[in-house]
Amino acid sequence: VIEAGLIDGLRRAESRALARALTLIEEGGEAARTLLAGLPGAESDGPHVIGITGPPGAGKSSLVEALGLEMVRRGQAVAVLAVDPSSPFTGGAILGDRVRMTRLASSPGCFVRSMATRGALGGLASAAADALDVFAAAGFPIVMVETVGVGQDEVDVMHVADTVILALPPGLGDDVQAAKAGIMEIAHIFVVSKADLPGADQAVAHLRAMVELAPESPWRPPVLAVSAQEEKGLRELLEALTDHGKLLQLEGRRDAVRRVRAERRIRRAVEDLAWRKLCSEQPEAVGTEVEAVSRRHRDPYTAAGDLLRLLDS
Amino acid sequence: VIEAGLIDGLRRAESRALARALTLIEEGGEAARTLLAGLPGAESDGPHVIGITGPPGAGKSSLVEALGLEMVRRGQAVAVLAVDPSSPFTGGAILGDRVRMTRLASSPGCFVRSMATRGALGGLASAAADALDVFAAAGFPIVMVETVGVGQDEVDVMHVADTVILALPPGLGDDVQAAKAGIMEIAHIFVVSKADLPGADQAVAHLRAMVELAPESPWRPPVLAVSAQEEKGLRELLEALTDHGKLLQLEGRRDAVRRVRAERRIRRAVEDLAWRKLCSEQPEAVGTEVEAVSRRHRDPYTAAGDLLRLLDS
Repeated sequence: VIEAGLIDGLRRAESRALARALTLIEEGGEAARTLLAGLPGAESDGPHVIGITGPPGAGKSSLVEALGLEMVRRGQAVAVLAVDPSSPFTGGAILGDRVRMTRLASSPGCFVRSMATRGALGGLASAAADALDVFAAAGFPIVMVETVGVGQDEVDVMHVADTVILALPPGLGDDVQAAKAGIMEIAHIFVVSKADLPGADQAVAHLRAMVELAPESPWRPPVLAVSAQEEKGLRELLEALTDHGKLLQLEGRRDAVRRVRAERRIRRAVEDLAWRKLCSEQPEAVGTEVEAVSRRHRDPYTAAGDLLRLLDS
Repeated sequence: VIEAGLIDGLRRAESRALARALTLIEEGGEAARTLLAGLPGAESDGPHVIGITGPPGAGKSSLVEALGLEMVRRGQAVAVLAVDPSSPFTGGAILGDRVRMTRLASSPGCFVRSMATRGALGGLASAAADALDVFAAAGFPIVMVETVGVGQDEVDVMHVADTVILALPPGLGDDVQAAKAGIMEIAHIFVVSKADLPGADQAVAHLRAMVELAPESPWRPPVLAVSAQEEKGLRELLEALTDHGKLLQLEGRRDAVRRVRAERRIRRAVEDLAWRKLCSEQPEAVGTEVEAVSRRHRDPYTAAGDLLRLLDS
């Protein structure tokens, strides 16, 4: 189902092959599954996956580009995946935002791509995890995954990352929003972005106080002020990323994280497949249960139990 | 597993029984399933479910209370469910917000309750749908479901409603956010809330222009300016709600909507149950697949297919 040479192209990290593979994943069809099943097994640990999230206006893209350019200066190849939970209604407008990071995209060894979900199985988080397999096959040592906003979708996407950066602008007006979405709990590094703007020092102090309240842990999230515009704080951020990467290597932590992540991916795939199998193998039974539940003659949990018993083994 | 008399109490719409039933649903355990399986079948069409969503600051709770009080004045019993996707980290703070609607809550025949998800199966949207079964059993003719914010969670929750109101404050600064989350597509009535504030007229004009762009449909969403504070626009909003309710009754639309909703609930229950069954019946196989996927020796979709074939039929 997939083009001859696609997998070879990916192994060589060719831009055209990468773009094509990501389009297949975005579309989420049979071709995506064939591609993923055909990717070479891991030869290395895979990339250090860095997630960057935060509310709109946090300057995430500028941060990602500045960080990426700094990595390139240090001789590292970087891939960037900007994940966008856009709706069909407004998709165009939001994707319009994404024509950027042009300096990073044109740097040698780098690849920048935005991805929305259309048909992707299991939604954005699955698509992002699938995309990371492609970047791993292409041998990228570092992949940055950026999301728009801070909803549950973004939290799910951030679960694919080894290290999560939460970027907040100095105003911090959105901090409650961010907290609500559960991002606070999963961030490894807090960045007060646009640190050239007034209020950055207070924001740093505020976040540090909050981090102090968190339970003891081997990793105390650092709070850093970064200005992408003035290229300030990038070195400290890179150091924090390296430190967190090293911690993950210790004591098999990275293996544990990878197993959790694999389980989550399998679970989503099982969930998706179970329903599709039922609908294709037992359409009448599904129809009968839908009718009964819609008339409140049955509850959905009893219906689900009966349906699952019908699945061919 | 559930208390004697609980179902009888629900039939009589007793507040204590309602509160207890909603707590069980929130906790999402075996008792919730027993309760739901034991609810009496539908004797009527069930309540007209009105969803109210919009960004923080849109004054949704004031709107819901004003609307509820107006309904009470017209002799209708109303239940309100305020759904809150709070995280464990910050749950307390956000729930603190919810001690309100005290006038409506103390009105005869009314019931107000906020609900967060803790263990609820399938998340907030499932819990909200389950709660609606409880309100249906208690015979409420109208249930309002309010959500906090406008993320994917909220869109999912709004799928339980017959009529969705999107409330936006005059500033409209959050309109892009709202659009992004896909709320625009599912709203049946747009409300510019806090219409006593400056900018309300422009906001109405802006939204009307947007609605004009939508494809032809039997229901053209009205755009209404409402001030809960000054009790302005409530009558028009109630008329729009009644009109939309009537449209749903036509040509079996409501049945169609209810089937879509039932299918969504069964699907979520199937997804949840499929994974739980696999983990309890085939823990070794699950462990082996997790290991293989975590080492990139297999892809999650192939693993999911193999696992599902192992499910006992």
